[in-house]
Amino acid sequence: MQMSEVNAMNYEEFIAVFGNTVEHCSLCAAAVWRYRPFRDVRHLHDEICKFLDDLPLAGREGVLRSHPDLAGRLAKEGKLTQESQMEQRAAGMGDLTPKESTDLAILNFSYREKFGFPFVICARRNKKEAIMEGLKTRLNNSLEVEVEKGLEEVKKICSLRLLDLVEHEGVKNRLLILHADGNDC
Amino acid sequence: MQMSEVNAMNYEEFIAVFGNTVEHCSLCAAAVWRYRPFRDVRHLHDEICKFLDDLPLAGREGVLRSHPDLAGRLAKEGKLTQESQMEQRAAGMGDLTPKESTDLAILNFSYREKFGFPFVICARRNKKEAIMEGLKTRLNNSLEVEVEKGLEEVKKICSLRLLDLVEHEGVKNRLLILHADGNDC
Repeated sequence: MQMSEVNAMNYEEFIAVFGNTVEHCSLCAAAVWRYRPFRDVRHLHDEICKFLDDLPLAGREGVLRSHPDLAGRLAKEGKLTQESQMEQRAAGMGDLTPKESTDLAILNFSYREKFGFPFVICARRNKKEAIMEGLKTRLNNSLEVEVEKGLEEVKKICSLRLLDLVEHEGVKNRLLILHADGNDC
Repeated sequence: MQMSEVNAMNYEEFIAVFGNTVEHCSLCAAAVWRYRPFRDVRHLHDEICKFLDDLPLAGREGVLRSHPDLAGRLAKEGKLTQESQMEQRAAGMGDLTPKESTDLAILNFSYREKFGFPFVICARRNKKEAIMEGLKTRLNNSLEVEVEKGLEEVKKICSLRLLDLVEHEGVKNRLLILHADGNDC
């Protein structure tokens, strides 16, 4: 899809296509509608990031809470969104050994108990070993640090979802990262 | 439902029950989850209102954009949320004469063209005559005034949806308004 097509959408079409680029938070797409026409994917992504950054703390936590656990109950019951299902599969979450699965469940539980929201990481940019290590490391952080870390991951997930939908500089390339920072955890 | 039952819910149950107390904006419920346990419905409502007030302008507009037109296309196609359908019916939106229906469509269109979001009013606290008059009057307002007016209506809608779900001071009473201001338009 070209950005010109996005800019020609009516509001309902826009929400139908971009409503889940931030998991279960269609308010993000609803908010950035005001900034049309978008110059390119980066512009659209920048506005979503700015909206996320401008949310009060409760809202940023709410965005994180709207994400599913990695290889959690929703995944096991086949209740993930289409996007999350594909992303978790890409990170090898469907191929965990029984021990890895148990370890991850315990870490997820500990993380949620400490912070009140799930561990969020851009699964498509990490494999299961990096995810397990990242989870262990991030468990030691403070709440404030984890809200920021989690939000940065939400932005990466969003950038990849956008690039699945809209061509960027003539290419539709899932490996193109809009905001590469080289530091996933 | 008693507030004690609400406070005993896990996150998924909470979102399943309260996710649409602000139309299509489950982020509101996701955000206020951090303030549990809630003392009563008023406390829950106050936290949602505070979250709405703390949203950046784009977010407050996004909340308004997440609402359907009164007697609009979604209503005609039977695609309203269950809550909106009941509310619009209560305001007599299902009993418009052909002329009223045309007048309302023109007013809705004019409002959306001017402000970039639909006209939002607490339908259960207004009948169709008051809604038509309110729409005509509010069309003359500035964008800033209408964002605030619209948000006040969202809060009233939310309070009634909450009172449909949770008992307040021993009574479950749809006529009880948490934040009565006596001024609907």
